[in-house]
Amino acid sequence: MRQRNKPWADDFLQNNPQLIIPNPAEHKNKWQSIFGNNNPIHIEIGTGKGQFLTGMAKQYPEINFIGIELAKSIVVTAAQKVMDSELDNILLLNENAEDIHEIFAEEEIDGIYLNFSDPWPKNRHEKRRLTFHSFLKKYEDILDPSGEIIFKTDNRGLFEYSLVSFSNYGMKLEEVNLDLHAIEDPENVMTEYEEKFSAKGQVIYRCRARFVK
Amino acid sequence: MRQRNKPWADDFLQNNPQLIIPNPAEHKNKWQSIFGNNNPIHIEIGTGKGQFLTGMAKQYPEINFIGIELAKSIVVTAAQKVMDSELDNILLLNENAEDIHEIFAEEEIDGIYLNFSDPWPKNRHEKRRLTFHSFLKKYEDILDPSGEIIFKTDNRGLFEYSLVSFSNYGMKLEEVNLDLHAIEDPENVMTEYEEKFSAKGQVIYRCRARFVK
Ligand SMILES: C[S@@+](CC[C@H](N)C(=O)[O-])C[C@H]1O[C@@H](n2cnc3c(N)ncnc32)[C@H](O)[C@@H]1O
Ligand SMILES: C[S@@+](CC[C@H](N)C(=O)[O-])C[C@H]1O[C@@H](n2cnc3c(N)ncnc32)[C@H](O)[C@@H]1O
Repeated sequence: MRQRNKPWADDFLQNNPQLIIPNPAEHKNKWQSIFGNNNPIHIEIGTGKGQFLTGMAKQYPEINFIGIELAKSIVVTAAQKVMDSELDNILLLNENAEDIHEIFAEEEIDGIYLNFSDPWPKNRHEKRRLTFHSFLKKYEDILDPSGEIIFKTDNRGLFEYSLVSFSNYGMKLEEVNLDLHAIEDPENVMTEYEEKFSAKGQVIYRCRARFVK
Repeated sequence: MRQRNKPWADDFLQNNPQLIIPNPAEHKNKWQSIFGNNNPIHIEIGTGKGQFLTGMAKQYPEINFIGIELAKSIVVTAAQKVMDSELDNILLLNENAEDIHEIFAEEEIDGIYLNFSDPWPKNRHEKRRLTFHSFLKKYEDILDPSGEIIFKTDNRGLFEYSLVSFSNYGMKLEEVNLDLHAIEDPENVMTEYEEKFSAKGQVIYRCRARFVK
């Protein structure tokens, strides 16, 4: 899925290896040392343009955030936002969520955010949904037992599917919110999609789930 | 909760013991013999005026239905509807859901419907919600392992609560539907409340959950 027709994006990546980490598997089990502290690490999968990631990193300076984004041109936009923010508790990876178990060691991660993941509505594309059981297996491996998956979306079908998928995997639902914006929550950091779809009057769903060891 | 100020309801109950069964605990483990067949038994808890129960009994003649309704004056209305329907696969109980484990034997029941249960929104009333864990324990006892709880409501708070409650009890979600009426389903039998609230534009939620033995 690398977009070969974006040479400026390639240049940007090459020039900013301190922010968009190349060959991340080399840092497996050593991510805290890159941040230079012992703070917990939260990852966001499918970070998009980075509004949520930078908002969270600002709100929670004692947490290290890593954003994983497959699309090169999009991760570059996120990187620019991170630079503008001058926050030092954010890293980015231009990687596929498929590979997270190569990148992080067992229980190295303390929280996983999935925000407005691509819905893949067709049954035959079920395997691509980021809440399909093969992904849950990888999340389970890298997530500390006390950690949670926190999932937001406006997509009803994907949310319904994901609640059932979490449940069938044996995960426990800690919270289900079927209208996140019904009550104002000053701690909620909006993603780009969340801002766009809630402005259109779409309901935003959220759940928190954890693995049972 | 018997309403002493409804003598006509008392009379009705006394005159119709073949439909609104008195002293149901005496029939524990023998409900099929009252129906006179070996068909599976589904119960609805908080039957209200009986629209769902009669609709289901008509649609599924090979299933026996028992409606449990606490309010005497309401169970009488349901009884009149059952009589008008001339269906013979329905019984009613003027009982409290609290007591179902006294009324049914272990695994005697093959399906449980909860429709638009009272939401009891205050935290201090959590115990009264029909999806509180003490009720789930009773449902688990009387429900055959292959049976499901099928829950419909328009109440967002109660639905969110119930998904988490089912999950924390260790139940598996088989289905979550966050807008039941988005697609027309000819098999869906509407309850009185469902008809009323969906006509007002309220979203109707449904889930199916089962116990894991
Ligand atoms: C619908 S967008 C949502 C963006 C952002 N999270 C938001 O809420 O505004 C989904 C993002 O996930 C990325 N993505 C999709 N599949 C991915 C995968 N397997 N690994 C990493 N990123 C992925 C896409 O490139 C896209 O940027
Ligand atoms: C909100 S109404 C819904 C009626 C019907 N199920 C419908 O969907 O139209 C709830 C019903 O549950 C009954 N109910 C409440 N708590 C009950 C309990 N513990 N046992 C039996 N019935 C109960 C009430 O009397 C009331 O008729």
